[in-house]
Amino acid sequence: MNELPLPGFAEVLAAAARIAPHATVTPVLRSRELDAMAGASLHFKAEHLQRGGAFKFRGACNAVWSLDAEQAGNGVVTHSSGNHGAALALAARSRGIPCHVVVPEGAVATKLANINRHGATLWRCAATQVAREAECARVQQETGATLVHPYADARVIAGQGTAALELMRQAGATLDVLVVPVGGGGLAAGTLLAVRQLLPDCDVVLAEPAGAADTARSLAAGERQLDFVPDTLCDGLRGALGWPNFALLQGNAQVITVDDADTVAAMRLIWQVMKQLVEPSSAIALAAVLARPERFAGRTVGVVLSGGNVDLDALPWG
Amino acid sequence: MNELPLPGFAEVLAAAARIAPHATVTPVLRSRELDAMAGASLHFKAEHLQRGGAFKFRGACNAVWSLDAEQAGNGVVTHSSGNHGAALALAARSRGIPCHVVVPEGAVATKLANINRHGATLWRCAATQVAREAECARVQQETGATLVHPYADARVIAGQGTAALELMRQAGATLDVLVVPVGGGGLAAGTLLAVRQLLPDCDVVLAEPAGAADTARSLAAGERQLDFVPDTLCDGLRGALGWPNFALLQGNAQVITVDDADTVAAMRLIWQVMKQLVEPSSAIALAAVLARPERFAGRTVGVVLSGGNVDLDALPWG
Repeated sequence: MNELPLPGFAEVLAAAARIAPHATVTPVLRSRELDAMAGASLHFKAEHLQRGGAFKFRGACNAVWSLDAEQAGNGVVTHSSGNHGAALALAARSRGIPCHVVVPEGAVATKLANINRHGATLWRCAATQVAREAECARVQQETGATLVHPYADARVIAGQGTAALELMRQAGATLDVLVVPVGGGGLAAGTLLAVRQLLPDCDVVLAEPAGAADTARSLAAGERQLDFVPDTLCDGLRGALGWPNFALLQGNAQVITVDDADTVAAMRLIWQVMKQLVEPSSAIALAAVLARPERFAGRTVGVVLSGGNVDLDALPWG
Repeated sequence: MNELPLPGFAEVLAAAARIAPHATVTPVLRSRELDAMAGASLHFKAEHLQRGGAFKFRGACNAVWSLDAEQAGNGVVTHSSGNHGAALALAARSRGIPCHVVVPEGAVATKLANINRHGATLWRCAATQVAREAECARVQQETGATLVHPYADARVIAGQGTAALELMRQAGATLDVLVVPVGGGGLAAGTLLAVRQLLPDCDVVLAEPAGAADTARSLAAGERQLDFVPDTLCDGLRGALGWPNFALLQGNAQVITVDDADTVAAMRLIWQVMKQLVEPSSAIALAAVLARPERFAGRTVGVVLSGGNVDLDALPWG
């Protein structure tokens, strides 16, 4: 992956044009009650209402429609604990090409069902990074499919940046700070590309689970820290920060680490007050805002609600 | 109640103007997947995003702002299993007047919390209609507060009609049929007033729980059938059809009765596919559509998602 050129703002703009016929322009939601709780003006980008139920469709769609006709014919392959897999399946279907998804054991049932429903071929493997990548390489070799990595991919990063691009246009106010969840760093890095160009004074804050805080450690150390075993119910944020993602984020973003208990409380709040079904990996962004009132009070804050694929039979409370 | 004049379309228009400074113009939501399942074009009016989490704010707000200054000073009182109580509390607060809510035992915890949070005084009573009305009369006598009945009230009916008014304007297509849940009949009767005037060819279909199907029986019999004990998890639809509601609906609406199991299935669908947190009393409208494909196929269908106040610790599955 290290040889790929890093994407820039031009790639985010190109992605926006490329995915426009396929992706939903998701709304920006407001809540008087949550504004009052945070003491801030919160603008929620509703990516749980994106096709496939998560922002992941943006990057997947950009990658699929970036392929030339010959590449496209052989299809695409990825490994994903869920949302990226479903997104790539949907994106491949929008172009009428095959899609293979390698899924680790332990993935959320709803997300598996989504991948299936969208017509991809599922391949199961053990829940380690090594097993995922080995199985992915095998499928790639057998089918000639192009790998679309969930986050360490310039096309994916550029695609994810389009959510922030839209949010800045839609908010109707100049954002002082934009908060996004961080796992592998696709959304984080893409957001950074969009924000740095359009709103250079806007802070980019990454919300990361305390149980998978490799981004916080990596940015602090100045190099990627890959020696960790994720322990968080934010199933979308267990991946290790990618190389291009690290390269783009380094020196440009701050991280707030959040305990799962605070994420669950924020998730209940979003469900009860906003009536929006978001997953823990989304709610963590609001949890970060509520955990640091001094950091956000009085400011205009963008919050990306990244996805809403929740297993309704295994809710994190009660 | 029988002496009150019945509201008409003019009262719905007046209500729309009266509540405009306070109520939210809720969005109309679409879903490709649900359209495909229903074989119809579904336009969901998102009243779970209304203030207080239900359409009930419309009627309560219209009633509160209809009072003259002297009446208003003595406050308002109602009995409600939940959403109307919270709505009246919010409406009273918007005018700065006292609000008393009589709540029967067994009401949903989230709804009680909402009433409290919005600053009303709570009075508990037994879960019978007689006990509710007796306690309500007592509070009325002690305080001089004006009774705002949850549904058998011309001001409330006119207010509830504003949801359909907005939906018809927003849908961007001529509705062939509009489906709303029916309990006491406030939303149903108000909807009818709006639809009959603006889209006389549009059918009004009422979705009613099989375990509280007094509206179906009342309309069939030509007089109100009040001898029933509600047995449904649609906690917002357990009330008996009101007198003015019956008078307005008689001969003008069709009823589809729905089993709770179908309502729960529809509720899961709305949660998973639309990522919208609606309560059973809302989901019943989609359940009615899915239960009768021959009735709705190929048509442009309005569906009012009436509310989203769910007890997250007591979900009807798993």
